[in-house]
Amino acid sequence: MKQLHSFLQGSWKPGIGDDISLLDPTTEGAVAVCKKAASLADAVAWGRATGGPALRAMTFAERGALLGDMARIVSEHRDELLTLAANNGGNTRGDGKFDVDGGTAVLSAYAELAKELGDAPWLVEDEPALLFHGSKLRAQHVSLPRHGLAIHINAFNFPAWGMLGKIATAFLAGMPVLTKPATSTSLVAHRIVELLVESEVLPTGALQLLMGPAGDLLDHVGSQDVVAFTGSADTGAKIRTHAAVVAHGVRVNVEADSLNAVVLGPGVDQGTELFDLAVRDLVTEMTQKAGQKCTATRRVLVPSDKLEDFREAVMERLAAMADKTGDPRDKGNRMGPLATAGQLRDARDGVAKLSEHAAVLRGDPSRAEFSGVEAGKGYFLEPILLEASPERALDPDAAFHVMEVFGPVCTLLPYDGTPTTAAAIISLGHGSLVSTLYSDDRAWIAESIPNIAPHLGRLVVADEKSARASMSPGCVFPVANHGGPGRAGCGGELGGVAGLSLYMQRTALQGGASNLARIVGRKG
Amino acid sequence: MKQLHSFLQGSWKPGIGDDISLLDPTTEGAVAVCKKAASLADAVAWGRATGGPALRAMTFAERGALLGDMARIVSEHRDELLTLAANNGGNTRGDGKFDVDGGTAVLSAYAELAKELGDAPWLVEDEPALLFHGSKLRAQHVSLPRHGLAIHINAFNFPAWGMLGKIATAFLAGMPVLTKPATSTSLVAHRIVELLVESEVLPTGALQLLMGPAGDLLDHVGSQDVVAFTGSADTGAKIRTHAAVVAHGVRVNVEADSLNAVVLGPGVDQGTELFDLAVRDLVTEMTQKAGQKCTATRRVLVPSDKLEDFREAVMERLAAMADKTGDPRDKGNRMGPLATAGQLRDARDGVAKLSEHAAVLRGDPSRAEFSGVEAGKGYFLEPILLEASPERALDPDAAFHVMEVFGPVCTLLPYDGTPTTAAAIISLGHGSLVSTLYSDDRAWIAESIPNIAPHLGRLVVADEKSARASMSPGCVFPVANHGGPGRAGCGGELGGVAGLSLYMQRTALQGGASNLARIVGRKG
Repeated sequence: MKQLHSFLQGSWKPGIGDDISLLDPTTEGAVAVCKKAASLADAVAWGRATGGPALRAMTFAERGALLGDMARIVSEHRDELLTLAANNGGNTRGDGKFDVDGGTAVLSAYAELAKELGDAPWLVEDEPALLFHGSKLRAQHVSLPRHGLAIHINAFNFPAWGMLGKIATAFLAGMPVLTKPATSTSLVAHRIVELLVESEVLPTGALQLLMGPAGDLLDHVGSQDVVAFTGSADTGAKIRTHAAVVAHGVRVNVEADSLNAVVLGPGVDQGTELFDLAVRDLVTEMTQKAGQKCTATRRVLVPSDKLEDFREAVMERLAAMADKTGDPRDKGNRMGPLATAGQLRDARDGVAKLSEHAAVLRGDPSRAEFSGVEAGKGYFLEPILLEASPERALDPDAAFHVMEVFGPVCTLLPYDGTPTTAAAIISLGHGSLVSTLYSDDRAWIAESIPNIAPHLGRLVVADEKSARASMSPGCVFPVANHGGPGRAGCGGELGGVAGLSLYMQRTALQGGASNLARIVGRKG
Repeated sequence: MKQLHSFLQGSWKPGIGDDISLLDPTTEGAVAVCKKAASLADAVAWGRATGGPALRAMTFAERGALLGDMARIVSEHRDELLTLAANNGGNTRGDGKFDVDGGTAVLSAYAELAKELGDAPWLVEDEPALLFHGSKLRAQHVSLPRHGLAIHINAFNFPAWGMLGKIATAFLAGMPVLTKPATSTSLVAHRIVELLVESEVLPTGALQLLMGPAGDLLDHVGSQDVVAFTGSADTGAKIRTHAAVVAHGVRVNVEADSLNAVVLGPGVDQGTELFDLAVRDLVTEMTQKAGQKCTATRRVLVPSDKLEDFREAVMERLAAMADKTGDPRDKGNRMGPLATAGQLRDARDGVAKLSEHAAVLRGDPSRAEFSGVEAGKGYFLEPILLEASPERALDPDAAFHVMEVFGPVCTLLPYDGTPTTAAAIISLGHGSLVSTLYSDDRAWIAESIPNIAPHLGRLVVADEKSARASMSPGCVFPVANHGGPGRAGCGGELGGVAGLSLYMQRTALQGGASNLARIVGRKG
């Protein structure tokens, strides 16, 4: 059995205690094992003391070149990583590419951005401002890398993209990283770090990998550290309230649950490109990665008079996907299993709760036979579509507004087509990562945005003209903010240069106008 | 006895239960009483539902005009407010002006900024970015007012400025406010709100005032609300870990303890303007508001070879201040009492702890006779200066690096004059609001900034040329960030337009290039 070690303080550490198995979610067989690490106090201190100075001594351009090297290395081993993603993540080849190529893309995007930032010693955030009328003094804001360690605690669904997106922004900002993948699917993350270590592109101390549980990791955080977490709201709450995090005022970013809602607006009639796009997007969002995406669509607002057409079109496509659900290594299959037995159990429980407030239109949560898989084996769930009544759609306590079912599960919510009702329904999710408005009605869009956007980290506006070029809303691009208010964790990552701010301290420099101009104007 | 009521849901509410007394810290006599409020659930909901839509319906320019009106009203009642500040806050006339005029200034500054923002429907944060190479799609970030309530919990030391600075940014961003002053000194805040209510300039629901304790206020927060707190680290930690705050992902800003350190660099010799400025600034920071400022200087790094001259100059000025400590209503006095008996007790305890690691150069914490005050009455503490050894200055556990003594108390820390040592000592404060570098040595400044600024929210660089025009570092200007990492609360307020971000949601808008240009380009 393959043993996966942690990479801490510059070397591979086997860990202590019992083996923890990583499974193949299709066969339920073990594919590798890891162990928990001993105390992480030294690793945290070592990352700060070694990786921090090394990265801060590099210019933005040099750090960008490092990201470019990392992208190349990951890309060169793409096929191997896709095989691991299938074996340990239950990913179809398409799902695996979405994760691995997403990771390469975010590294490349920040490598490009680094060229613009060049060799400046800091980010200059604004123009100098008069301290008060008639003053010779000015204030101007710059951002500098924090002198701590960036601790990344990632979710099971994107072992490549999730890890590399966080690393890209931390490295470019100038902070060393200790990354902890979710144990269940950590084979891909482990192999990527192994490749990066073997390539010797990383400055000493810049990257550490923790396999297995977090252990006492958070007991050792300090005032210059950053914790970035993606995962469940419960774990997010534990991190935010951890004694050391609170005592030392540690900066924390959380990206957690999200009841993403898309909205069909006026004019999305059968036969239009927008109608087809809305159907296609929804099926993609429900079934890509078997619906295990934080950005996947969970609620679909459909004007009551369009409901029948839309429902029919979606049902037809979902039926085809249900037939092609099974072993992700089989190229004929379009959807694989959920990642773990626990995820399957939670999703089945979730569907049961949703069905108290919405009718199941299609999908059998207890289905046990899937293409190319031994009957009863694997953590499979076929696509499940529900539909609520218009009245229930406005019920704040309805399960579809309260709980995220993390699988290929979605609820149609009929509504009256007005921006007011759409905003009211969206707000019942109490903060989401992303929504999409499908419409060409300019007045409707203009009225919707100020009432809907404050509940979101990202809002896609899909119009007829760009429908063919449009990307499914769950696809996260490095140039756009990823995160959302409230339930979604109240955080933000990526979004171009703004993504660096999580790892930098924005400080006002204050002084005489000419002195400040000389200081801020100087080159590294 | 004057009864101070809360202003909740559009009317004055007397509250319930026992009287809570507000005292005169000079005489220890009561000046007013208030009571705790009943459940605040309705007030929170009412603020969101009434004040939110009212403010969001206004343009930035209209909200700015409101701030201008508020500044005028406060300014028209300045003398009355200064009297209240002396009677309930122990403020000298100078201290009162610092607070009240600071409040007027921050309102006026944001009123000015509003003119630039005009009638735009949102803040446009960046240029549209290509979603990926060759794509017709773009992402662009806008900020819109959050649809919740801004809850402001303020500190006792700045009842006017602290309250009005937070209100200025929340109102301009478009969020309604429920403000809770610290009970002990709330007479000024209460009178300001009374004046604003009487003037009828406020939109209905825009501002509520909670007198007395916070009660169940935080039990009712939701995902679109914002909590901004200034005060002790302990209370800050309670807010951050409050069950409802955590459960709903409420955005929280904390501004707490800070062990602000100033650094004398190379060339600050006796006889230079910079030397005189450093002495003058330190005495101001120690004694203004009797040292009860979050931005007051607590640690002074002095090159060992300049220590004797600097110590002597500071001691001479402090001796003069000690003679002029007493009843703040007497124009001959330059420093008044601390705000409460509890503050005096904590400060005396703090001095005792500091004196375990540093020698007391001057000041008697038990002194009981002050100018114009009955012996033994009032919460007075004369200026106290301590000095550590160069070795102790580097001890991470030394009391002066660990605890903030909130009064006219400061410790001199001799050091070797290098940026490396200065940064090491500053970092032992684990995050501060502000520091000042006094030097004209360009290489020293250039080396210091990247190592010192990440520990700070603001860094003042004082040079010989602008020494005469310089402002004491504890003075917070609306154009500069106010907040700091780690111990200082890990927050940020003010800082020009960036100060609005606390009350807005930054959302990526994503769509076809021409559609997005039309949407973002449109005017309200």
